[in-house]
Amino acid sequence: MSEALTHDSIKNGWFVERSVMWPGQAMSLQVNQILHVEKSKYQDVLLFESSNYGNVLVLDGVIQCTERDEFSYQEMITHLAMNSHPNPKKVLVIGGGDGGVLREVVKHESVESAVLCDIDEAVIRVSKKFLPSMAVGYSHPNVTVHIGDGFKFLEDYQDSFDVIITDSSDPEGPAESLFQKPYFLLLYDALKEGGVITTQAECQWLHLQVIKDVLTAVKSVFPVVKYGYTTIPTYPSGQIGFCIATKDASRDVTKPLRTWDPETERKLCKYYNKEIHSAAFVHPTFLRNVLEEIEKDNEAGLVSAEIKQKMKE
Amino acid sequence: MSEALTHDSIKNGWFVERSVMWPGQAMSLQVNQILHVEKSKYQDVLLFESSNYGNVLVLDGVIQCTERDEFSYQEMITHLAMNSHPNPKKVLVIGGGDGGVLREVVKHESVESAVLCDIDEAVIRVSKKFLPSMAVGYSHPNVTVHIGDGFKFLEDYQDSFDVIITDSSDPEGPAESLFQKPYFLLLYDALKEGGVITTQAECQWLHLQVIKDVLTAVKSVFPVVKYGYTTIPTYPSGQIGFCIATKDASRDVTKPLRTWDPETERKLCKYYNKEIHSAAFVHPTFLRNVLEEIEKDNEAGLVSAEIKQKMKE
Repeated sequence: MSEALTHDSIKNGWFVERSVMWPGQAMSLQVNQILHVEKSKYQDVLLFESSNYGNVLVLDGVIQCTERDEFSYQEMITHLAMNSHPNPKKVLVIGGGDGGVLREVVKHESVESAVLCDIDEAVIRVSKKFLPSMAVGYSHPNVTVHIGDGFKFLEDYQDSFDVIITDSSDPEGPAESLFQKPYFLLLYDALKEGGVITTQAECQWLHLQVIKDVLTAVKSVFPVVKYGYTTIPTYPSGQIGFCIATKDASRDVTKPLRTWDPETERKLCKYYNKEIHSAAFVHPTFLRNVLEEIEKDNEAGLVSAEIKQKMKE
Repeated sequence: MSEALTHDSIKNGWFVERSVMWPGQAMSLQVNQILHVEKSKYQDVLLFESSNYGNVLVLDGVIQCTERDEFSYQEMITHLAMNSHPNPKKVLVIGGGDGGVLREVVKHESVESAVLCDIDEAVIRVSKKFLPSMAVGYSHPNVTVHIGDGFKFLEDYQDSFDVIITDSSDPEGPAESLFQKPYFLLLYDALKEGGVITTQAECQWLHLQVIKDVLTAVKSVFPVVKYGYTTIPTYPSGQIGFCIATKDASRDVTKPLRTWDPETERKLCKYYNKEIHSAAFVHPTFLRNVLEEIEKDNEAGLVSAEIKQKMKE
């Protein structure tokens, strides 16, 4: 009989999620059994069976997905972008090693090719073994997988993708570079005309400054940038946001450009629907105030750029 | 020097919120110091200063409000109802002993009288001492307070209130009767023509069956019944819902009947705005499916009532 697995974050049968990113609060989940523990090349990988949330993937001590509520995140990060593009054929997923975003991407019949690039093969391997309802995304014939740094991967592509979805962990750790301007410049260049991105963009209740920084950086690259969000119990404070941007200056990403008929939509999705696509961009006043500050700063920036240009002339 | 206070739910400097109502998960908050512990006539009352969420009120082991995020709940449960009434003059709050809902009610200049009825004087007393930013609601000249059972209080009133807000704890405990049909019949009778109610109606991610039961019961009494929700980190799974109903069969409570001008709205509210009023009623598909089932059951019920009536004729 093999020795029972242990992990520092699990004590007395409960996993506790503490982090400097959300001081003074912690979500706990009851653990039935630890299924996998590994120090991969990039991060600490933990997979456990919970009492009420199915199997749970944890990277560097932070919950990435649970079988019970993952659909909210995967559907929203994917379809907010996919349905903001008129005809997405070539799609790239950066991160997303659990396969859930891929599963959502290939629900769109227009997709001819979906490429996933994750830095850590351990996440893909563990997900295929313990999260089959997510990893099912890998079994689609139009999917290809690349193990490597998303940043470096993008440097080889120009004018190549209709949609790029960055399904990353938090900015503390291997995903840090995916929250900064050089990355958004690479995304812009790798997109075809009219292309769309979504990136994981943290929680309105915890990380207003991160949201402000990310949106400001994306806004300096893309003409249209919006913040949408979804509810999800096992992410810190119960929600997570996305930054959605497009190269098409005339497009309104807060309204789906394409929709499924109601019956198909209901079959394909448990969370996403065309009404919640728009509602995801309606913000409480405390967040709206921050987003309006970004708009103002941006306009001020644009004006000063114009003035500089005129001074040169 | 007085002995330091202790409480069963606080260990190693952390408060842990476990309950049979959300098995297998628990929110934890770091505790700076315990400020008050009391077994009142009705419940266990705990007040502590947290490291990052300000002062926190806990009843029977369940977080009722924290100074950091309470505004979301108080504003939404109040203004969804208040702004669905054309001219609310007389308002009743059942529960809400912390005073936060009162604080929101008296923001509406039309209000001539706001009555609060809470069963537990301890909650009011402790809130006045430790939650002054909420208990400020009690200092308004149009406010009166009644200590007693909301159920019994309502029996004395007919055709009396424009808006009644039930700001209760969960159905396990002293608030149990506030989730059942006899209570909704009392609310209906105590309301004037065109009156509006909101009641705390639990979380879409945890309590679909409670939501279904409450809405079904309210629908058997009121012609218009809707479920709205708000995000709030320190309620289980990060959100909480409300049942909004009105006696006016022609009214659409999902769109505010009255609005503040943008500048006033921004001064008065940190969460609520007229756009989020409507967005609060847009549901993920898994909840929409349940709400549609209620509509179908209700229609079937109405049909069978019609058939019964015809059989009698």
